Amino acid sequence: MPRRLPSVPEFCPLPTGFRAAGLHCGLKQDGAPDLGLLLASEAVPAAALFTRNELLGAHVPVCREHLHASGGLVRAVLVNSRNANCATGQAGIEAAKQCCAELAQRLSCPTEQVLMVSTGVIGAALPTDRILAHLDALLAGATTDGGMEFARAIMTTDTHAKAAYREPDVTGFAKGSGMIHPNMATMLGFLLVQSEPGHAPTPRSLSRDLRQVADRSFHRVTVDGDTSPNDTLLLLATPSAPAGAEDRDALPSAQVDRLEQISRELAQQLAADGEGATRLVTIEVRGARTEADAARVGRVIATSPLVKTAVAGRDPNWGRIVAAAGRAGVTFPAERCRVWVGETEVYADGVPRPDREAAASQHLRENERVVLGIDLATGDGTAASGGEGADVWTCDLTADYVQINADYRT
Amino acid sequence: MPRRLPSVPEFCPLPTGFRAAGLHCGLKQDGAPDLGLLLASEAVPAAALFTRNELLGAHVPVCREHLHASGGLVRAVLVNSRNANCATGQAGIEAAKQCCAELAQRLSCPTEQVLMVSTGVIGAALPTDRILAHLDALLAGATTDGGMEFARAIMTTDTHAKAAYREPDVTGFAKGSGMIHPNMATMLGFLLVQSEPGHAPTPRSLSRDLRQVADRSFHRVTVDGDTSPNDTLLLLATPSAPAGAEDRDALPSAQVDRLEQISRELAQQLAADGEGATRLVTIEVRGARTEADAARVGRVIATSPLVKTAVAGRDPNWGRIVAAAGRAGVTFPAERCRVWVGETEVYADGVPRPDREAAASQHLRENERVVLGIDLATGDGTAASGGEGADVWTCDLTADYVQINADYRT
Repeated sequence: MPRRLPSVPEFCPLPTGFRAAGLHCGLKQDGAPDLGLLLASEAVPAAALFTRNELLGAHVPVCREHLHASGGLVRAVLVNSRNANCATGQAGIEAAKQCCAELAQRLSCPTEQVLMVSTGVIGAALPTDRILAHLDALLAGATTDGGMEFARAIMTTDTHAKAAYREPDVTGFAKGSGMIHPNMATMLGFLLVQSEPGHAPTPRSLSRDLRQVADRSFHRVTVDGDTSPNDTLLLLATPSAPAGAEDRDALPSAQVDRLEQISRELAQQLAADGEGATRLVTIEVRGARTEADAARVGRVIATSPLVKTAVAGRDPNWGRIVAAAGRAGVTFPAERCRVWVGETEVYADGVPRPDREAAASQHLRENERVVLGIDLATGDGTAASGGEGADVWTCDLTADYVQINADYRT
Repeated sequence: MPRRLPSVPEFCPLPTGFRAAGLHCGLKQDGAPDLGLLLASEAVPAAALFTRNELLGAHVPVCREHLHASGGLVRAVLVNSRNANCATGQAGIEAAKQCCAELAQRLSCPTEQVLMVSTGVIGAALPTDRILAHLDALLAGATTDGGMEFARAIMTTDTHAKAAYREPDVTGFAKGSGMIHPNMATMLGFLLVQSEPGHAPTPRSLSRDLRQVADRSFHRVTVDGDTSPNDTLLLLATPSAPAGAEDRDALPSAQVDRLEQISRELAQQLAADGEGATRLVTIEVRGARTEADAARVGRVIATSPLVKTAVAGRDPNWGRIVAAAGRAGVTFPAERCRVWVGETEVYADGVPRPDREAAASQHLRENERVVLGIDLATGDGTAASGGEGADVWTCDLTADYVQINADYRT
């Protein structure tokens, strides 16, 4: 049974306390939704992670300023696609602030409780008039059923909307068909949680949770190894209903686990929708000294053009996998490592197994989700896998990727 | 006048004291030369740089062992193409040592004064019988005119031999059409110097010189960002004729300069011959705090698939250049940086100049050597460029690159 690409839900419920909307305000030329809204019924604690690029979209400093001023409380998040509001100077900052202010006015909340996030073309002025003219309609359209409309409104080069949820209280949306395509993409993620009775997470506790979740999901996906000036990940949690003396100032760990699950699903949806991709590739790294080492090796393999073109050619090229692992800055005994493709070990103890390459190649040909694995043989043997492990997701590198990116503006 | 790709000399003289040869010993299937020899008239001081990959071709530990045992003296370097002797276990090590021993026997020198270097397919046993059967012919054919035969013998996926020289005393050869293609390529470089009277460089002084030269040449070229298990750079210098009291234990700086010049030429030849490449791209980074910062930013730009596909599409995509620079881990004020394509500034002080993109695009269309530049605006203004700078070389990323690497073994 061939493994298919991850499916995207047709409907995505929102946790209690949130509404969402999406509509066309005139930014995309084809009439598709290009303005989205996430709305909490009151100001809720939030946490954010932003790109580490030196070049920043205007929304990044504005979000930081607002989160600082509001003490980490957020009432609404406005998102536009098609225009990154990046490399637009002070005018871009003012434009983002104006959108927040006008939305806040309609919500009768402080401006700093509204965030704005942009993605799309770099270097073009944000058409604020079109956005402002649609704020009323956006607010009027915000419903508990609006999740997928929001997901569609934040798409750029994505071929489909990306969403994931776990009943009853955790939902996420994402967009991006590369870690970056500075003109027309970016990775955005939005995670919503309904806090459980007895738990009242703070912006500080959410920051800790978000970082942990991202380290095992959004930070483990790459299409082309780049990082957009606009990459943004937000986590909003409704305050809990009071439940008495046992109140805790953080999400329960089971809920953080669910957040991690949907974040990993979203990360895989991103990789599978990489530009020109035909395969979702899971890089399994095992037998490392630490999980961080495993993730580091996985990311280098996942960005290697040679590994990714080999997958495009359905070539179980273990030499490229070991060589990519070998330049990750993590020490391991290459003569003792093992490499597998799907279920088939193609290299072990320094010895290639050419007799098994046919089975490995078949795995690459017949599945849309494929696995490349390496055991670094540095584990101490105490864990089941003989060391620490990590999965990283990417896609194959096809001639279509080159064509899409070479022809993008021509 | 369009700028053409760097030309390769048809004839490449060797410094006095060196001979070279190349012949077909039966490794390549098309009858092309696949075994090369560099021969010094006596054991000469040498220095070496090897790949930093964890996976090592068998020749790397053997070279290290021989250089250690000989005190850095080298009489001969044997190079085979088509077979990397990598991932071949202890048998591979023994194979390399056997080749060195049999050549040393014919030269009546200690085995450790002979080095062997391999490049080609990973994971296949080295056919030592074919190599050993041709050692006599190789030695008989070694002449002062044999430079280009050697250069041809070390080629793998290269479309042409790579050589450069500066009269009267400095010559270099290289191969590679990517920094790595672990099955069938690798970067190899060989630099030969005739020491000047009064100068007697030591292996230690040559190591220092080689590292400095490589930092400004071979370490500034990338095709796909990978590092082969077999990458090797060797520098051999004839001992000088005695010249009396003013003897110095290092190459004169003018000679190191010439070494750097030919190394930069070879690096550019490598980039221009990248798989599928249609453009040699020089990344000019200026206005950095240090030269190392500039080189670091340049390398990230040079490995960005988005920048490289934009060049393939003749798209002066400044957004991708700034975004790549922004993720290099070097702090700079992105709102004050400048970007140019050819002679045309397309982004300055945070403001794009769309009116200039036609001229920039023309530069990319009409030249085979193109320039992408960025000024990071962090210089202290004391140097002419307002800070430190570095050039890095790469090539464009075309659909042909993907096709070549996807179809390599199929």
